[in-house]
Amino acid sequence: MDLFECPLCGPAPPRDDRSAFCPDCGQPLFVALPPRPGRRRIYEDKDLAIERFADFLPLERIDRGLSLGEGTTPLLALRTFGTRRGIPWIFAKDEARNPTGSFKDRGTIVAIMNAIARGVKRIGTVSTGNMAVSTAAYGARGGLETFVLVKEGTPDSTLRRAAAFGARLIEVQGDYGGLFQKSLELGQALGISFMNSVDPHRMEGYKLTAFEIFLQLGRRAPGCLIVPVSSGGHLLGLMRGFVDLEREGLLDRYPHIVGVQARGCSPLAHAFETGRETPERPIEVRTIAHAISNPSPPAGRAVLRWVRDRKGRLLAVSDEEMLEAQGELAAQEGISCQPESAATWAAAKRLLMAEPEGRPEGPWVLVITGDGHAALRVRERAPLDVRRLSLEELGSGLADMIAGPGHGQDRSQRPR
Amino acid sequence: MDLFECPLCGPAPPRDDRSAFCPDCGQPLFVALPPRPGRRRIYEDKDLAIERFADFLPLERIDRGLSLGEGTTPLLALRTFGTRRGIPWIFAKDEARNPTGSFKDRGTIVAIMNAIARGVKRIGTVSTGNMAVSTAAYGARGGLETFVLVKEGTPDSTLRRAAAFGARLIEVQGDYGGLFQKSLELGQALGISFMNSVDPHRMEGYKLTAFEIFLQLGRRAPGCLIVPVSSGGHLLGLMRGFVDLEREGLLDRYPHIVGVQARGCSPLAHAFETGRETPERPIEVRTIAHAISNPSPPAGRAVLRWVRDRKGRLLAVSDEEMLEAQGELAAQEGISCQPESAATWAAAKRLLMAEPEGRPEGPWVLVITGDGHAALRVRERAPLDVRRLSLEELGSGLADMIAGPGHGQDRSQRPR
Repeated sequence: MDLFECPLCGPAPPRDDRSAFCPDCGQPLFVALPPRPGRRRIYEDKDLAIERFADFLPLERIDRGLSLGEGTTPLLALRTFGTRRGIPWIFAKDEARNPTGSFKDRGTIVAIMNAIARGVKRIGTVSTGNMAVSTAAYGARGGLETFVLVKEGTPDSTLRRAAAFGARLIEVQGDYGGLFQKSLELGQALGISFMNSVDPHRMEGYKLTAFEIFLQLGRRAPGCLIVPVSSGGHLLGLMRGFVDLEREGLLDRYPHIVGVQARGCSPLAHAFETGRETPERPIEVRTIAHAISNPSPPAGRAVLRWVRDRKGRLLAVSDEEMLEAQGELAAQEGISCQPESAATWAAAKRLLMAEPEGRPEGPWVLVITGDGHAALRVRERAPLDVRRLSLEELGSGLADMIAGPGHGQDRSQRPR
Repeated sequence: MDLFECPLCGPAPPRDDRSAFCPDCGQPLFVALPPRPGRRRIYEDKDLAIERFADFLPLERIDRGLSLGEGTTPLLALRTFGTRRGIPWIFAKDEARNPTGSFKDRGTIVAIMNAIARGVKRIGTVSTGNMAVSTAAYGARGGLETFVLVKEGTPDSTLRRAAAFGARLIEVQGDYGGLFQKSLELGQALGISFMNSVDPHRMEGYKLTAFEIFLQLGRRAPGCLIVPVSSGGHLLGLMRGFVDLEREGLLDRYPHIVGVQARGCSPLAHAFETGRETPERPIEVRTIAHAISNPSPPAGRAVLRWVRDRKGRLLAVSDEEMLEAQGELAAQEGISCQPESAATWAAAKRLLMAEPEGRPEGPWVLVITGDGHAALRVRERAPLDVRRLSLEELGSGLADMIAGPGHGQDRSQRPR
């Protein structure tokens, strides 16, 4: 039986149900790491992240065979916005390089390994995007029956990716907001282990990103960590990872945490700015950033408390800022990501514009949470510039392009 | 100035043009590794593949900053078709986990690093898919102007991915077959370094996959390596990687190489089966496997000679076999890939059906060349099974699904 602790109230009584919310404050619980004698070690010779950081995970046994090779993602220096401008300390942690294209895989592997250890045969998730695809993939890997509950109007592309892994898809009509809690209750009754956004084991998996960044920076915490925030589970997992390192005496500073929301759905950034402890549900959600548009973040109060306690901040960026940042990361850095992930670069630009004394110390790390494929729908509205030339015209056409207006500048003049 | 060697004729005279085809036999040239005293080393403590295997690359200097973190991809045991059936020696080398979703990135990084070292400011490629996107991404990373020449009718999704990286797109009308050679000539004249499928430096990058498999199997070659074949550049690069290891005295056996083509475009498999040295262009190309449908593979004669010399084989699988294999890898192993990549599993199944005495030794490695996103168009024709339930109906609906026909079996009855 796992031990739990509340991010606000501390140690919680042992429990074996999976609802995993604090009976006192209602915030999602963490799994408490079982105590162990001596220091926890990092096994740098291991190739799999779940083995490398096994001492920090609440798993009795690691089953390598369940892994799809999640984690161990690259930390890429930003060249144009960093090195070339004399700021060699902005990095992108490219979580899009996980098996199904997002950070969710790190959480899914830990949650599913725990589920299989408990004898579970059926898993599920409530998601409209990355988490659905991730859970479906690992469900297939583990030979489990997987139920994916989606909202009405979820795009076919997401459904098809999950369906390819053999997941059973259910489109839930009506109030999707109530589904989070309901899925846990039904799962308890029907023997389906639902691993939603703030599942305690899922959050443990997100700690590993913090550990990897620490190693990739030469056993040093970043001065500033910038991450998109929606339900709050990813941010809490990352923060908890740095707490683990701090507890082991490995950190000389705790990073300045910057959580980024979309202005069109920013209950946490709003509560942070106005000094409230509890986020208020926005009257209207209006953003292209679907992956970070949770109007009622289940870990909202915990996020606000933890970010304030650690002197971090929460801020919101506009859709325009995200799309501009997405274009810059692709065209100038070669990094393709969702607008939701590019929000980190949009936030970094704001911080860079602050006077040096207001700026967090370097190095800065942007957490790129997911890949750009899903985001193509957004870009499809933009005009596409394609020249059409015959083989005979090709030489003169290329020569014209080289001699003519520079790289990309005439794009808008030749919409397809 | 680089030294070259022909896969058929041996050492070639030094040259500084980039056409890089043997003046005697017309096959693509390899870059010869500059000689060095003592053994070449593998630097296992390095995280980037290009640094780990730098001794085996024809680059004077490695610029880490150009990397997007390509390589170091996972080697995944097949569980259902392997471990669970008592055959624990079939692995998938998941090249889809490269930065732009395919093995092409390994070649692009080496080719672009060489181009930048030569002072090149403009690069290009002739591609209708993965190579276009890869070249565009690295062109952006390197701050180079990038020209992508595509065929009429190339899907918008590919064009948009390349365009996002700021590449300049040119759709060439007419005979696309002649474009390969023409692009090299025009590039020479206009100062655009074209890095096409059999570019000598590109092929050097593919060696690294062989080196990684060798390390991941515990410094041992696989008994059998199964890889899709189109132009022949990837297969030759992989084979050359194992030759490098052999030359360093690190191999106790050379793997049994299996090159897989699509039956609807299989000039190499056909020539192999009929004992010919030169592939014949098929009268008609008819396959869904666009990424492996080159009717005139530029490295065709070299592939045939090398595979025969090493007692390997070339075979063709049908579109139906590929689609079935693609579905199995996703639904039973959690591995999403293009049908072209799943061709390797289709080929493996054929080999498994052979009597044990005809079977290559284990372990077997399937090279999964690219991700499943591009392949969604194919799957979109299939019906999609989605249940629609209200929140109130959800409990009874889930219970029915659990009690009812098994996982996925009723899919076809409920098309969307």
